[in-house]
Amino acid sequence: MSYNLDLTDLDRQGGRSVTAQLVERFRAAIDSGALAPGEKLPTTRALAEQASINHLTAVRVYRRLAEQGYVTAAVGRGTFVRSVPPADGERDPVDWQSAVLPELRPSYSNEIFLASYMLPSEPGIVSLATGSPDPAIYPSAALGRIAAEVLAEGGGEPLSYLDPDGLPELREEIAERGRALGFSQTADEILVTSGARQAIDLVCRSVVAPGDVVVCESPTFIGILSSLQFSGARVIGVPVDDEGLDVDALERILARHEVKLVAVQSGCQNPTGRDLSPARAQRLLELARERSFFVLDDGVYATVRFDGRHRPRLRHELPDHVIYVDSLSKTIGGGLRIGWVAASGPVRQRLTWIKLHSDTHTSSLTQHVAHRWLASGEHERLLDATNPGYAHRCDALLASVERHLGDEVRVRRPVGGHHLWLTFRQPIDERALLSEAIRCGVTFLPGNAMLAEPSGTAAMRISFARLAVEELDEGVRRLAKAVRAVRHRASRPGLAALS
Amino acid sequence: MSYNLDLTDLDRQGGRSVTAQLVERFRAAIDSGALAPGEKLPTTRALAEQASINHLTAVRVYRRLAEQGYVTAAVGRGTFVRSVPPADGERDPVDWQSAVLPELRPSYSNEIFLASYMLPSEPGIVSLATGSPDPAIYPSAALGRIAAEVLAEGGGEPLSYLDPDGLPELREEIAERGRALGFSQTADEILVTSGARQAIDLVCRSVVAPGDVVVCESPTFIGILSSLQFSGARVIGVPVDDEGLDVDALERILARHEVKLVAVQSGCQNPTGRDLSPARAQRLLELARERSFFVLDDGVYATVRFDGRHRPRLRHELPDHVIYVDSLSKTIGGGLRIGWVAASGPVRQRLTWIKLHSDTHTSSLTQHVAHRWLASGEHERLLDATNPGYAHRCDALLASVERHLGDEVRVRRPVGGHHLWLTFRQPIDERALLSEAIRCGVTFLPGNAMLAEPSGTAAMRISFARLAVEELDEGVRRLAKAVRAVRHRASRPGLAALS
Repeated sequence: MSYNLDLTDLDRQGGRSVTAQLVERFRAAIDSGALAPGEKLPTTRALAEQASINHLTAVRVYRRLAEQGYVTAAVGRGTFVRSVPPADGERDPVDWQSAVLPELRPSYSNEIFLASYMLPSEPGIVSLATGSPDPAIYPSAALGRIAAEVLAEGGGEPLSYLDPDGLPELREEIAERGRALGFSQTADEILVTSGARQAIDLVCRSVVAPGDVVVCESPTFIGILSSLQFSGARVIGVPVDDEGLDVDALERILARHEVKLVAVQSGCQNPTGRDLSPARAQRLLELARERSFFVLDDGVYATVRFDGRHRPRLRHELPDHVIYVDSLSKTIGGGLRIGWVAASGPVRQRLTWIKLHSDTHTSSLTQHVAHRWLASGEHERLLDATNPGYAHRCDALLASVERHLGDEVRVRRPVGGHHLWLTFRQPIDERALLSEAIRCGVTFLPGNAMLAEPSGTAAMRISFARLAVEELDEGVRRLAKAVRAVRHRASRPGLAALS
Repeated sequence: MSYNLDLTDLDRQGGRSVTAQLVERFRAAIDSGALAPGEKLPTTRALAEQASINHLTAVRVYRRLAEQGYVTAAVGRGTFVRSVPPADGERDPVDWQSAVLPELRPSYSNEIFLASYMLPSEPGIVSLATGSPDPAIYPSAALGRIAAEVLAEGGGEPLSYLDPDGLPELREEIAERGRALGFSQTADEILVTSGARQAIDLVCRSVVAPGDVVVCESPTFIGILSSLQFSGARVIGVPVDDEGLDVDALERILARHEVKLVAVQSGCQNPTGRDLSPARAQRLLELARERSFFVLDDGVYATVRFDGRHRPRLRHELPDHVIYVDSLSKTIGGGLRIGWVAASGPVRQRLTWIKLHSDTHTSSLTQHVAHRWLASGEHERLLDATNPGYAHRCDALLASVERHLGDEVRVRRPVGGHHLWLTFRQPIDERALLSEAIRCGVTFLPGNAMLAEPSGTAAMRISFARLAVEELDEGVRRLAKAVRAVRHRASRPGLAALS
């Protein structure tokens, strides 16, 4: 014990009690740091002897200090200085929260993900950051009719609790598509979630423990990065190229680590819009089987495929290893929050547990609406009608990029999805560029937010799902203007410091 | 290294390569446990010397073992035996999942919570376990009209993404009720969640770190217990009596532990249906301020108050310390999944983070519906119309309990909510009673599932919100029959073993 308080010179004649004086000295020692958090105080017997007081007074001193939040007593172990500062009316009333809340250091990706919901979206701004479709394509009239029907016919049922796996009829509709696309065989494998975003979070909470090693594509969907990081895992990024995840790079990691999970988007990857090639997919599955890791395959963009032709999903080949997540967000609206996860084996039951303890189940009303919509057969007609439109917008955006930014960036034509992935030929400060872009009336997502680790290469994701061809072109024109302004300032360091 | 493999007697003349023979020996040693998980293998140089082979052959042996999933190499540290068994076509294909999934030991409460969603609910069974209201009271016709309106007028908007805090107009409607009831002042304090269940989980994920000490009422809502247990905290239960949480018992815990959070339901507690008395509420808040802990106040049943008069919520007095959660689940339907949390200080922003990474936001469609419903003013009229009905059913159930189970149990009249809490005068095996009750055509929730730690006292929660007075009486009659059967068997130990 480093405790070294002089307790011999107490005023035993004056008006203040010895108890009050001792309490005051301990408080001062704790507030000044002379007594550190967690430090053990002398036993009441030792205190009584040192301060020449009786044992009951020593007990009273410690009780007062405990009442005031300065010390805490552990039965059989003694009395200790608390690590949480005691309340103090003078200080900022929220100071104490910061002292007691667990550490939470949001990563750059986390920040950008939140910021992307807060980026300016007023009419004057061209949002190339927003990846969601034009709300005009959502079948709101049909869903309105369905919602009214569901509540008129179902009465209180669509407002009542469901079991955590979700509405059986909806799970059956999803499983039917699973049989066609290869992500599931039966409704038992399906758990309905509040969007694919929740499905990813449930998978991470079910499979990943702090300290585990997990792998994801880099760049990838920010939500995958965030959920993996929140799980306390070590997240290793593997590059993606025109054929998707670099499986050779993955093998080198597997030789060195016991990897728990590899997260991919095997079709129309976000943000690159490219597929995992069949040869690489085959090798990835072989590795999963040999090395016993889970593959999380996020298929949200795989249905948004320009040619409308669907390859069987990865889970088709190795259902106990591949956990598949998907949603209706890219087709009938992310605001509905209807997604699902397909899995089997012990992890399937865990997902039900974690779902139950997260939010009981996904809204019954929206599940009933989604079920009737899928059962109507309109869904596939909507996909057939909208996907060619995305191809058209994609090509227009590619042409605009070529026209306004051809010297600055490289880009590959995606096979589907809503995004282009632009990499800069020369380094540029992404944050400075985003500020300048907002000044010029356009937004984008900074590329490094989508990487497992920031790299020296600057990149950005721009999206074509929401805007008309003319708006896309105007957006890229403004982006090019912002790039020129940032390059210009960077070439004059004195001015850069002022920006 | 305990490694002790004899490598001197390799067959150097035969048909099999030395590499294959060495790989085989290592595999056999690992499979038999002679080489344990995590054990370090000799360096390639040492292996070459020991087995009298060249260095390149030693490297090849380890590469093969790595490819087969037996070992893993860490740069600069060496080669180690993997803890995950390698794939084996002969074994159950899900065996490997159990080897890699993190430990998850559901508690008795967890099990009962999940089971309560799976308890028999066919027509013949009287479900006294179900705490949710009769779906006939839900305003499904009005909500159907509203949903159709929302989608007709809003077009794609109610199907589009929102920011994680929720729909601003809905947050404003909730905050208005917050000003009347004392749980919030402004809409900034409100985060919309997918039911109070998710709000509780978000609070636990934001505030509690593994190893923290947290306190809850015992008995309490199973969902509170589950979320606290999942957070990895040490959960200490404090008894409740007719005046709510025993604050003296809490003080004794506070003197010994740095408590992070105290979870209560200060009005119409689930399952006891009693209020925290004003004197105890005052002392709880004083302690929270002095000792710097959060109070989680779950108000879901506080609006279901028989006399319709509302006491200001705890958060009114100490808004930075009290985090309030509530929902529309007990009034217009749990299936809608609309709840909220009211908080301020640094924890408020954390809740937004965790919500974003959990499921992005709560369904836009249901938030729009909830907003128009609250704005219509019908909500308060519904409460005024339904709450007296609950008082009537409660009194009828109390009379039935008195009539059929008066000798067996003790019970107090609740001031609100949907439940009665029955404690047995004599010990009885709750699990055996639940099995027998299902055989007799009635279900209930076993009391020990609602305790922080199982106690010697048997108890049960039975609910009156859903059933008509005659059904309630029939349910209690069957319960009494089940109790008699279990008592009868217990008095004849030979037969009990057969049951």
